[in-house]
Amino acid sequence: MASEVERRVAEAADLVTVALDELLPRADGPEARLTEAMRYAALGPGKRMRPYFVIETGRMFEVEERPLLRAACALECVHAYSLIHDDLPSMDDDDLRHGRPTVHKAYDEATAILAGDALQAAAFEILAHPDTHPDPAVRSELVLRLATASGAKGMCGGQMIDLLGVRDDLGAVARMQRMKTGALIACAFELPLAMAHSADTRRQPLMAFAQDLGLAYQIVDDLLDAEGDPDVMGKRAGKDAARGKANYVTLLGAGAARERLNLLIEQTKSHLDAFGPPADFLRASVDYVLQRRN
Amino acid sequence: MASEVERRVAEAADLVTVALDELLPRADGPEARLTEAMRYAALGPGKRMRPYFVIETGRMFEVEERPLLRAACALECVHAYSLIHDDLPSMDDDDLRHGRPTVHKAYDEATAILAGDALQAAAFEILAHPDTHPDPAVRSELVLRLATASGAKGMCGGQMIDLLGVRDDLGAVARMQRMKTGALIACAFELPLAMAHSADTRRQPLMAFAQDLGLAYQIVDDLLDAEGDPDVMGKRAGKDAARGKANYVTLLGAGAARERLNLLIEQTKSHLDAFGPPADFLRASVDYVLQRRN
Repeated sequence: MASEVERRVAEAADLVTVALDELLPRADGPEARLTEAMRYAALGPGKRMRPYFVIETGRMFEVEERPLLRAACALECVHAYSLIHDDLPSMDDDDLRHGRPTVHKAYDEATAILAGDALQAAAFEILAHPDTHPDPAVRSELVLRLATASGAKGMCGGQMIDLLGVRDDLGAVARMQRMKTGALIACAFELPLAMAHSADTRRQPLMAFAQDLGLAYQIVDDLLDAEGDPDVMGKRAGKDAARGKANYVTLLGAGAARERLNLLIEQTKSHLDAFGPPADFLRASVDYVLQRRN
Repeated sequence: MASEVERRVAEAADLVTVALDELLPRADGPEARLTEAMRYAALGPGKRMRPYFVIETGRMFEVEERPLLRAACALECVHAYSLIHDDLPSMDDDDLRHGRPTVHKAYDEATAILAGDALQAAAFEILAHPDTHPDPAVRSELVLRLATASGAKGMCGGQMIDLLGVRDDLGAVARMQRMKTGALIACAFELPLAMAHSADTRRQPLMAFAQDLGLAYQIVDDLLDAEGDPDVMGKRAGKDAARGKANYVTLLGAGAARERLNLLIEQTKSHLDAFGPPADFLRASVDYVLQRRN
């Protein structure tokens, strides 16, 4: 099962990269520097975990491939824009991302800010386009979900809290994580759900799964930040500790964080029991994505 | 008629400011700094010209008030976000806007970048919400129009070209202007059009009007940049010349630019003949908005 999951993750990543290449504006015209920077960020190396979950969840619900792929691309555009902006000197000030210069290093700060802005617009342009779904009510719902998850009460708000460093206990760290990364991870399940029939009865277990998965993903992140190999990760390690920022590992210690992670992984998978055998790949992918080393 | 237009512009500005105050997230929670900055930018002084045109055009087409107001707010959110980002040190590096410190001066760069990002998300969240229009096809259309106008082939692309300074002739300046400011001004007419019945037969003259109005607006901007009073404008003057950037006035001279503007104003109004007396206020507002001194 593990190698089959690996194959499906790689296949989804390829599908999404090809589709994004089609969907993003070509690098031509006098504004080519902007579209080049957008493509550098969105088409470069990346795990494409969110798109994978969109596609796998959609398959579980028997959603058609094409709408899924476009929704996955839109989500990846928002993820890519958030990384560009988070890496800026006035934010996390990172020079490397997936082993390559960050966008403001490869281009410049102004281009990086604009590339992020234009990738956000591209995400909503993709979702609202009739090609994404024949039912405009579904398209509106997709836009609403992604906009809410990425705005002031979601991803942007979480990044603000992270920058302010106001997290001195586990509750504050958890709230920040749910906004900064959890909301967009949840979107990877919200979007295919919005395209599925009888979405309402499936929402509760799927959202519980998404929330636990997001938390587990964050603990893995914090463990990698504390113990990971910078060469494998393609970015700096130990950033939170160096900046005096609390996270699951600095607050709990690595051992207790790992214990909590293991319990959480079982709990995460248990939410999928409601979906029976069609959820097998999703269940197996939990281990796969949490065993990552970068 | 002039004073009646003035009254309607002021009334629309008030309506939109009150509605935006309702729609934007409250400044509470640990992310309050972000929502405060969003409110500082979007609710502060401003001409609210785009919202005015949304509302006046919608009234001409007998669109209901509430959808119009929400569309006007969404457009103003995108306009506000673009000003925050354009003012950043790595972009136009402006300290003042409407006589107040720009967002990165009143807060800091990171907060300014995030506030712009979250305002963009808020715009699409507003448009996609069922409260905006009962017909989801209309909501999707609104999102698609605004996303296209503000993305890489619209506003963001235009700002990129402007930053690169690649405009040595009138054609290049005009292309840049159509993307950077024209696309969003056109949206002020596109959005109410999408909410109107028999939109297709009305598109051509209305878009011709929007395009000429956008160009005229830009020439006024360039004249103000060359000759305006910084105290009245609440921002620096002579910026383009100081940066060696070509615009309509640096290329044509102030006299020829003013002549072209006067011809353009008549041409702009003539596109409204197709709409008869219901377009009277829109026609009268052309003079009003082009006589601005800031």
